[in-house]
Amino acid sequence: MADTDTRFAHRGNKESLEEALAFQPKFDADGLIPAIVTDAGTGDVLMFAWMNADALALTIETGIGHFWSRTRRALWKKGEESGNVLKVVELRTDCDQDVVWLRATVEGDGVACHTGRRSCFYRSVPLGGAPSAALQLTWSKDPQKS
Amino acid sequence: MADTDTRFAHRGNKESLEEALAFQPKFDADGLIPAIVTDAGTGDVLMFAWMNADALALTIETGIGHFWSRTRRALWKKGEESGNVLKVVELRTDCDQDVVWLRATVEGDGVACHTGRRSCFYRSVPLGGAPSAALQLTWSKDPQKS
Repeated sequence: MADTDTRFAHRGNKESLEEALAFQPKFDADGLIPAIVTDAGTGDVLMFAWMNADALALTIETGIGHFWSRTRRALWKKGEESGNVLKVVELRTDCDQDVVWLRATVEGDGVACHTGRRSCFYRSVPLGGAPSAALQLTWSKDPQKS
Repeated sequence: MADTDTRFAHRGNKESLEEALAFQPKFDADGLIPAIVTDAGTGDVLMFAWMNADALALTIETGIGHFWSRTRRALWKKGEESGNVLKVVELRTDCDQDVVWLRATVEGDGVACHTGRRSCFYRSVPLGGAPSAALQLTWSKDPQKS
């Protein structure tokens, strides 16, 4: 588990986490950290996934997005089969270092979503009324399949 | 819990989740769904937080970002004290409807992070080498306090 992982610094106090430069990522009870992937050009959120310590270490070392598939319980190099590999332009962490943000470009077809869309976020939730089970999503501006 | 929540549709099969327009958000074992907040103008990720069903319903109804504080175990209207309220421009969900993305503007001082910074993601992780406990983050381009 990540607690004894020598690849990352041990978690310090609040001041250390927020204001220091030691990388002290927090992995949750399942050994995972959330990872947000945005398009380095447009800023659109492309996908959201999870990393274990191995996936995070590989992403840092190679500059290519690696994740942990919770359904397959396996390390997952995004795009390994499709060719739609994520080339990381910048990797950031947040104030308490329990999330990472990948600014990336998508190689191959430029498609990040397994449904064939550029982004996984292709539907919008209408705002301004109390939700009910009948609430209908709308297609977002860029919902086309590639 | 969300399973019996009449404010959201019941979870359907993969085809329904991915290609239909019924909003069927998935709350995890703790009743929470991850929420990514980006700046509606620049696309920068501002923060990452969690919502329970009440927080999600309130966000939809009011167009103002509400979350669930896991540390305080309480509903949390972001900016209630600071004035840095999140005005949601667009709310999206992803292919399997287990994440939401808020494109928002920050009212008040325009500061989303409790450390006083515009974004919680103010440090970068250097790429290209295997990580070690000695790895040092760098300040991202926009690390200034407001």
